[in-house]
Amino acid sequence: VLTVRETKIFSKKIELRNPILIVGLPGIGNIGSLVVQYLIQQLGAKEFATLYSPHLPYFVVALDDGGFRLVSDRFYYYKNKDKNGSDLVLLIGDYQPATSEGQYDVNDQIVKFFKSIGGKVVYTIGGYASGDNKYVANPRVFGVSADKKLRKELEKHNVIFGAMPNLSIIGAAGLVVAFAKMHGLPAACLMGETGMLDVDANASKKVLEVLSKILKIDIDLKDITKLQTETEKLVKELQEAAADTASKQASNPNYIK
Amino acid sequence: VLTVRETKIFSKKIELRNPILIVGLPGIGNIGSLVVQYLIQQLGAKEFATLYSPHLPYFVVALDDGGFRLVSDRFYYYKNKDKNGSDLVLLIGDYQPATSEGQYDVNDQIVKFFKSIGGKVVYTIGGYASGDNKYVANPRVFGVSADKKLRKELEKHNVIFGAMPNLSIIGAAGLVVAFAKMHGLPAACLMGETGMLDVDANASKKVLEVLSKILKIDIDLKDITKLQTETEKLVKELQEAAADTASKQASNPNYIK
Amino acid sequence: VLTVRETKIFSKKIELRNPILIVGLPGIGNIGSLVVQYLIQQLGAKEFATLYSPHLPYFVVALDDGGFRLVSDRFYYYKNKDKNGSDLVLLIGDYQPATSEGQYDVNDQIVKFFKSIGGKVVYTIGGYASGDNKYVANPRVFGVSADKKLRKELEKHNVIFGAMPNLSIIGAAGLVVAFAKMHGLPAACLMGETGMLDVDANASKKVLEVLSKILKIDIDLKDITKLQTETEKLVKELQEAAADTASKQASNPNYIK
Amino acid sequence: VLTVRETKIFSKKIELRNPILIVGLPGIGNIGSLVVQYLIQQLGAKEFATLYSPHLPYFVVALDDGGFRLVSDRFYYYKNKDKNGSDLVLLIGDYQPATSEGQYDVNDQIVKFFKSIGGKVVYTIGGYASGDNKYVANPRVFGVSADKKLRKELEKHNVIFGAMPNLSIIGAAGLVVAFAKMHGLPAACLMGETGMLDVDANASKKVLEVLSKILKIDIDLKDITKLQTETEKLVKELQEAAADTASKQASNPNYIK
Repeated sequence: VLTVRETKIFSKKIELRNPILIVGLPGIGNIGSLVVQYLIQQLGAKEFATLYSPHLPYFVVALDDGGFRLVSDRFYYYKNKDKNGSDLVLLIGDYQPATSEGQYDVNDQIVKFFKSIGGKVVYTIGGYASGDNKYVANPRVFGVSADKKLRKELEKHNVIFGAMPNLSIIGAAGLVVAFAKMHGLPAACLMGETGMLDVDANASKKVLEVLSKILKIDIDLKDITKLQTETEKLVKELQEAAADTASKQASNPNYIK
Repeated sequence: VLTVRETKIFSKKIELRNPILIVGLPGIGNIGSLVVQYLIQQLGAKEFATLYSPHLPYFVVALDDGGFRLVSDRFYYYKNKDKNGSDLVLLIGDYQPATSEGQYDVNDQIVKFFKSIGGKVVYTIGGYASGDNKYVANPRVFGVSADKKLRKELEKHNVIFGAMPNLSIIGAAGLVVAFAKMHGLPAACLMGETGMLDVDANASKKVLEVLSKILKIDIDLKDITKLQTETEKLVKELQEAAADTASKQASNPNYIK
Repeated sequence: VLTVRETKIFSKKIELRNPILIVGLPGIGNIGSLVVQYLIQQLGAKEFATLYSPHLPYFVVALDDGGFRLVSDRFYYYKNKDKNGSDLVLLIGDYQPATSEGQYDVNDQIVKFFKSIGGKVVYTIGGYASGDNKYVANPRVFGVSADKKLRKELEKHNVIFGAMPNLSIIGAAGLVVAFAKMHGLPAACLMGETGMLDVDANASKKVLEVLSKILKIDIDLKDITKLQTETEKLVKELQEAAADTASKQASNPNYIK
Repeated sequence: VLTVRETKIFSKKIELRNPILIVGLPGIGNIGSLVVQYLIQQLGAKEFATLYSPHLPYFVVALDDGGFRLVSDRFYYYKNKDKNGSDLVLLIGDYQPATSEGQYDVNDQIVKFFKSIGGKVVYTIGGYASGDNKYVANPRVFGVSADKKLRKELEKHNVIFGAMPNLSIIGAAGLVVAFAKMHGLPAACLMGETGMLDVDANASKKVLEVLSKILKIDIDLKDITKLQTETEKLVKELQEAAADTASKQASNPNYIK
């Protein structure tokens, strides 16, 4: 029987070759979500594991077939067609935990799970808000990594390191990289520059270009705008539901004390 | 000795025949509370178990006999007069936990307890706020369920599925259904459409009509308006007490830091 | 070695005869604090145990000798001079926990500790805010108790029961009575009626009159106004320190994230 | 493998002679941070241990070499050149925990760790805000200690005790002293008087003068203004990052629910 009073990952058995993890959880500009969602669609990746946690919001999300999904993180895999290439593990999710304790717990479990299935390298995808809240026509990709070799390789593909000292990288984008390091896994955080706050396809495209090169996997980028439109719709719906819920709770002290 | 440093359910021993759980905890339009409270009154259901939890608010509620009740969830049973019918377990409560950890803990215990007494099917009752904050003259009943068979049966009674994708169903209404699924129990959430925020008897009536049919139990609906009046009074008192307490705490930083 | 990563009570060994616990923790009108502080002074009660808890605020309070006190609850005892009378255990403290989990933990430990030293009866002292925020010239004393015998005895001394159904009694005033009941101890909450929010000596006096009668202990009430002045000063200082700290934290996001 | 689901201190093996701990974590006027940072620079102290905790904010801080640092507290040591003198352990950090449970846990571990390496005396450095929010030309140094001998010694160097009864000393500055006392270690909190809220070099200087005397270590104070400028820059960057993050979270309910 499955129960979820602790953070748990339920996984199908699966054999992967030198897997690389790419984490795209909700964040600034929703760049991580958009990038990894796009990879899943373009590569036809398959879901194989789900993370449930009492640190995630206490929501169920209704699905269009009349079913539902408990708020969760979901792992997909992609088997590389090139026999010398690495397989991919792609991680998306609905929300991130709201407390430090929850963030440490969930992100630690993500790294441990990835290591347990033979994981080799970790990339987290995030956004770097340039601060002026305007559209960035030609976004740069910033990076952070404790691994010098990885840094050098990424710099070849124009990822910029060291330009934002004292920047705080919050949530999974930062913690998964830090915990991967503790587990001896090379890891980097890639951040697309964005001036927008909702769903930035332009910045996502730049990050996808970098990923395409370092993963040596062809990714057709022409559908990214379509996905952006869909993602914006979903983000708006989730935001409205959340705002709606919040206002209902606020106006009804009897509901949840 | 009873102690409550963890969530615990204290129960009398009881034999039930294929029990069906109906959960009516505080929520949107107080439809769950009103529906299940009404079932308890009309069917003369008897209290047999109490859930206490450190995740519920740290309140005691004064009773009119001079006694009190620690904030809790309370289970009632109803023995079906039809020998082939299922017995009912009816769950009401004062509040819901305010944290994710609390919600996961309490709702997991509800499902496990129900399973331990031979539980077969679960319904949670909630409200679906149509958003315009107006009285809904002819409310619909929306549903969510991962069980196709249950969905089909409920659709026969005009419950609408799949019409609200991405809707977030928060608290017990959503989590109990999700956890029931993990425990292999068929489960559905039924939501009465409401434009009001306090106590919606009209939407509650529609949900009761659906329950009457699927449970094959006659429920006389003529007293629902009377109960609405009482419930509105109770809700107002609890709200005032909560608001009062909140303002007192706010104005007195010495009270609780 | 003493450590405080869990709630703990450090106590001297002490022999008490049928002790009665009187709980006066910070709350509405600071009536509990004032009443029990006054009893301690008038009876010359001696401190014998201290409760520390990670659920209490992370403060140290400076003392006028240059030392300090970790925020705590403190137990005093008074040996009844009447050989047939009961000894008293008097509980005061600086703050109450801010979370449900903390409240349940601390109040459960208070009751268990009192039971472990042979405790027989429990009274918690609180305030009942009449709501108009005005001085109440002739305050009443309201009560809540699950023990019929105790209720009858208290009613003889004009304590009013059952007049405030659905009133929420928050924190120690309510929980200690509820947990005492679970441990089989007769318990009542006594609330002085108050229209003021800071330190209400008038309401405290009325509660002391009731206590004097039910405990059959003479308490000279003439110094209560003096204590009120001192208590108001202390409350103001603690409030200013707390407000000061809060504003400093707010204005300095680097201090505590 | 290092993992951080609990507060942990990772330390190199090191031999210290009667070490004295000086704690300078973020706080009022950043006096603690500035004082201990300055000691580290002037004495050329070496980092030897790191504290990680799920109670610290879920951030990674980017470094100027392209790497990063998980939010942490960091211990440095200084070997006293005087053979009869005590070695120093100097503690700085990025943030303090935001909850009572986190504060109690982290500060308890700091004291236990220091005791485990043979620690003898503890000083925590903080600020005392005089409240008028103006520059204090001639700041005093206030102290709090439960150790009479230590108090006397500090009073010789013009540290003022007992002048601020009922002052609340929050966070590490207070708790480390309280927990040290529980572990039998002499401990004092030294607070530089400050009217500024950001980085007060003037008050820090006065505290350094006291430390110089009681530790009998020469500290050249001429570079303190330079460090102040650097520290102000860092504080501003961390504040902006935090405020930035906060506003992004606020404007994007989908990011973290």
